[in-house]
Amino acid sequence: MARALAQVERAPDSRETLDLLNRAYDEPKAHVIGITGPPGVGKSTLTNALIAKWRSLGRSVGVIAVDPSSRRTGGALLGDRTRFTTDPEDQGVYVRSMAARDRLGGLAGLTVSGMVLMRAIYDVVLIETVGVGQSETDIVGVADTVLFCVQPGSGDSLQFIKAGIVEIPHIVAITKADMGAPARRAMADMKGALNLAGRTGNDPWDIPVLLLSSMHKQGIEELIAAFDQHVSFLQDNALLMSARHIQAKQWLIEAVREKFGRVGMQHVVEQLEITPTDSPFERLYDISQTFEKAWS
Amino acid sequence: MARALAQVERAPDSRETLDLLNRAYDEPKAHVIGITGPPGVGKSTLTNALIAKWRSLGRSVGVIAVDPSSRRTGGALLGDRTRFTTDPEDQGVYVRSMAARDRLGGLAGLTVSGMVLMRAIYDVVLIETVGVGQSETDIVGVADTVLFCVQPGSGDSLQFIKAGIVEIPHIVAITKADMGAPARRAMADMKGALNLAGRTGNDPWDIPVLLLSSMHKQGIEELIAAFDQHVSFLQDNALLMSARHIQAKQWLIEAVREKFGRVGMQHVVEQLEITPTDSPFERLYDISQTFEKAWS
Repeated sequence: MARALAQVERAPDSRETLDLLNRAYDEPKAHVIGITGPPGVGKSTLTNALIAKWRSLGRSVGVIAVDPSSRRTGGALLGDRTRFTTDPEDQGVYVRSMAARDRLGGLAGLTVSGMVLMRAIYDVVLIETVGVGQSETDIVGVADTVLFCVQPGSGDSLQFIKAGIVEIPHIVAITKADMGAPARRAMADMKGALNLAGRTGNDPWDIPVLLLSSMHKQGIEELIAAFDQHVSFLQDNALLMSARHIQAKQWLIEAVREKFGRVGMQHVVEQLEITPTDSPFERLYDISQTFEKAWS
Repeated sequence: MARALAQVERAPDSRETLDLLNRAYDEPKAHVIGITGPPGVGKSTLTNALIAKWRSLGRSVGVIAVDPSSRRTGGALLGDRTRFTTDPEDQGVYVRSMAARDRLGGLAGLTVSGMVLMRAIYDVVLIETVGVGQSETDIVGVADTVLFCVQPGSGDSLQFIKAGIVEIPHIVAITKADMGAPARRAMADMKGALNLAGRTGNDPWDIPVLLLSSMHKQGIEELIAAFDQHVSFLQDNALLMSARHIQAKQWLIEAVREKFGRVGMQHVVEQLEITPTDSPFERLYDISQTFEKAWS
């Protein structure tokens, strides 16, 4: 995985990288889970608890820790890499920090490539992002299942509705449940918020709201069960493929816009349509060839 | 002004619009002032007080109210247009709301065109923006003088340093000075913050920190005097032309990136250099022609 990611970083536009990404794109294996929520809510602690649990169940895990502070510098903070306490000898876990966003405001290109590579190798891919501004909506573009975390007493449930984030998650978790009454109140608030937004009681996916205490490892099994239920729900309703197809289409549009601009995009509008089995990486390569020919 | 702006909106890429913008670009008249600061700090009230004072001094004023909430919808909120209480019969004031940002994260194209048009007509152009995320840095790209507003008791001075905003303003105002002691404390905090960042005591521009009470019209004359001193400082040091030249270069780069992408920009890198007298609008048109020829 380290070698593959280094290859993508070193020569993102090369034929070799493209072949690697196409191969990975054609053989998705993992359930891709996005975790988002405000800073300080305990996402790293939760990620650690989830990794430990998945490993004990014999599932391999790839983690992408999206670093929100790296927009300016372009690189990920070293601190992020050491935030997780995984066994360096364990081949079944791979953790990688990545810059939050490229300078045009999209999820950094490497996040999508990294997800696709990890998706072909591990049983679970976890993408952890900090809920600041657009990151909640970005995560929808790369994850099959989105978990939104809030903590008790934060008034997050109101913010949750006001910012329109309520539309995004498939599962909501109240962290720091060891706080007792405030956690139960937060859970009631959040259920109220989801209800107001018409997101509960839906058939067949009724958004679960779970209480978690990563410190005491409470609720982790229930959370993993909820992840498994959601991916089953997606598969049973033929939604997994179609959601990934929509993600691939969206990624292609953003990538073409970033490389060739708004006007450039209009010139290849018919090339932007891809089928569920088309690799968006291959299509971006084709479009790049079209442009190179025009300019040569 | 309304007709000119409608023209730019209706046909942004036409030769007619281009001629209009070039003419305006060649004859700058106004001092362009940007006002930024957190929501609720009293920027609209201050803008109203400034307009009234400038009009009483016989100066004409163009106002661009940048609407932060319109990123999603693309249009400005109607509420913004009615936030200002100007005499509809007064030909010496023109207020226009504009969307905060285009979808790629830059200041919306119309903001720059609008500023250039207003700059050729009025004595003062005021651009009011809400300090959320990047807007503080955006304002540097269009204003000669940036005023940053904070209110007492907000802890804004710490945020001010942490977010790197401290580098941006030329003048700082503490609003709601009628609060008395908290306002004086906020002023001391802010002076401390500016001092820590090495931004006070500089020769020849020592950032003034002013106390304002828009409600009681206190400090407005001092603020206008500070604006006038800053534009004199820029002119005396030949900085006005050079700062505007840098703004034009930056705008051209952003506009080319938005229209033709990162890869497209590499193809016209030598066309991105402009002299202080070149119109960036004309240059963008030339670059567009280059692309159209390549694709035809």
